[in-house]
Amino acid sequence: MTAAPNLDSGKLIAVDWGTSRLRARLVDADGRVLADAESDRGIGAIDGGHEAIFESTVAGWPSVPAIMAGMIGSRQGWREAAYVTCPTTPVALAAEITRFTTTRGRPVAIVPGLLLAAPSRDGDVIRGEETQMIALIDREPAFTGTAILPGTHSKWARIDRGVIVDFQSFITGELFELLSQKSFLRHSVAEAAGDLSATPDFALGVRRTAKDGLPFLGALFSVRTRQLLAGVRPEDNLAYLSGLVIGGEIAAARAMRPIDPGTPVRVIGARSLARAYHAALKGLGFETVALDGDALVLDGLVHLARGLGYLPARAP
Amino acid sequence: MTAAPNLDSGKLIAVDWGTSRLRARLVDADGRVLADAESDRGIGAIDGGHEAIFESTVAGWPSVPAIMAGMIGSRQGWREAAYVTCPTTPVALAAEITRFTTTRGRPVAIVPGLLLAAPSRDGDVIRGEETQMIALIDREPAFTGTAILPGTHSKWARIDRGVIVDFQSFITGELFELLSQKSFLRHSVAEAAGDLSATPDFALGVRRTAKDGLPFLGALFSVRTRQLLAGVRPEDNLAYLSGLVIGGEIAAARAMRPIDPGTPVRVIGARSLARAYHAALKGLGFETVALDGDALVLDGLVHLARGLGYLPARAP
Repeated sequence: MTAAPNLDSGKLIAVDWGTSRLRARLVDADGRVLADAESDRGIGAIDGGHEAIFESTVAGWPSVPAIMAGMIGSRQGWREAAYVTCPTTPVALAAEITRFTTTRGRPVAIVPGLLLAAPSRDGDVIRGEETQMIALIDREPAFTGTAILPGTHSKWARIDRGVIVDFQSFITGELFELLSQKSFLRHSVAEAAGDLSATPDFALGVRRTAKDGLPFLGALFSVRTRQLLAGVRPEDNLAYLSGLVIGGEIAAARAMRPIDPGTPVRVIGARSLARAYHAALKGLGFETVALDGDALVLDGLVHLARGLGYLPARAP
Repeated sequence: MTAAPNLDSGKLIAVDWGTSRLRARLVDADGRVLADAESDRGIGAIDGGHEAIFESTVAGWPSVPAIMAGMIGSRQGWREAAYVTCPTTPVALAAEITRFTTTRGRPVAIVPGLLLAAPSRDGDVIRGEETQMIALIDREPAFTGTAILPGTHSKWARIDRGVIVDFQSFITGELFELLSQKSFLRHSVAEAAGDLSATPDFALGVRRTAKDGLPFLGALFSVRTRQLLAGVRPEDNLAYLSGLVIGGEIAAARAMRPIDPGTPVRVIGARSLARAYHAALKGLGFETVALDGDALVLDGLVHLARGLGYLPARAP
């Protein structure tokens, strides 16, 4: 791999640029965050003009290389990055990084996504979460188990000692938003303060869809009847709906590939969401650890940037 | 039962007043439709003022009794009608009809709904579809099997020789609208001309969720990958999504109560929807008959109106 130009003294801009959000962090040679910028100009909210949007987001920062993960590598992104077919490894992903230089002379790298053939469901794709998995493997090279990356589109991946074996996407996060905000169930739920996943209503929802065998589609109407017939408070009912949806995802994932509770699980996501999945899985007897998604994206980007020569290699 | 005032010569206004629609039909003593009026002033779109809205809808029609079914009997309706607990019969439902006289002296009857205890999902309710089941039982007194009433909220009911044994609600219709119009999948589907359910894409969707065991939640992302990776046309993909959703409902219903393909099925609903369920079930080997939902509501209302004396009893 060729050495990249270091336009400043060993600094890097690490970018998580997804559908709804752009987050850029300026880091030093040790991966410490020196500056942090966030905007809602995700790929879904803009129509081209990536360079100008990026430069205005990091205006005033030093002119250093940038490495990016997420939908920025999709057809609607800045440059289309490859998909690497599973099973694969961080080394194979690093080899497929797309590199170019902007009109201002800034080196930019875009991380490739993951592709799975999966004929029974016409394939599957990931863009963004591969970078968190790279960080997980960097932290725990011997990890063998399931990585769950909840979000708008939740991903379940099997990892076996450094190999990303396969994965499955669920649109559960988006479905929860639609059900709680746009469906007739919105009249039966209400936003609540505090941690939804610590409530008995959340646990009940999880139990019904993930343990008692109530099918997800057959469970949803109960959000309405609980309020209508049992007088359940709308705040408690939101926790119940959240439990049904997360439990439904767990049940679907296990139906597709039996995962016994002895399998180690890492939940990687935004704090409250990771906590909810962690609570649901713990309630079902799984051995899980919740990890902060933003921290893992950063770690993965820094790890890949070292391989590109954008940052000095880590001391052994 | 007391004889009701017949303010005109044996005519009746039969009303299907649901969440999104108000449909009134003026019928003669034989149940023939003399006039038909429809408006979008469903219970979900109005805030009280039921009498004025109803009278303006039927302005110019004779001043005869009206009988109504649907959400008009809910707490947000004109008068709250009872729920009758399953198992129950048309005779028991008729005995719980709510009757009152409007400020203009018009007799009005509202059909009660159905309630099921179902502790595993905090109960279930029906308002509107009970009237179609009354019509089905009137037509086929010996029918034993499953009545499926698709719509915004689909209902599956078990009927055993005149007894409505139990039922299950699914919010499948609403979910399909949200997924195809509000979720990110809207970019992967498009409205198509013609009968969706006659396409191979529809059949594939049904097969995957209802036969091959692909969980509904695990299947949805494939709508995106089919377009992204396999270049499936958005019009064909809408049929596929419709198949996944209807197949998912069938799988959920069968998981909750095993129904073998030998069980006779009656699908009662709007023409295109009834046709889609009919096609899905036939593809799975079920013996089904599709019946027009609007015709059955009318039949059920006329049947109940005869019992109230609003119309003369039918010649034996």
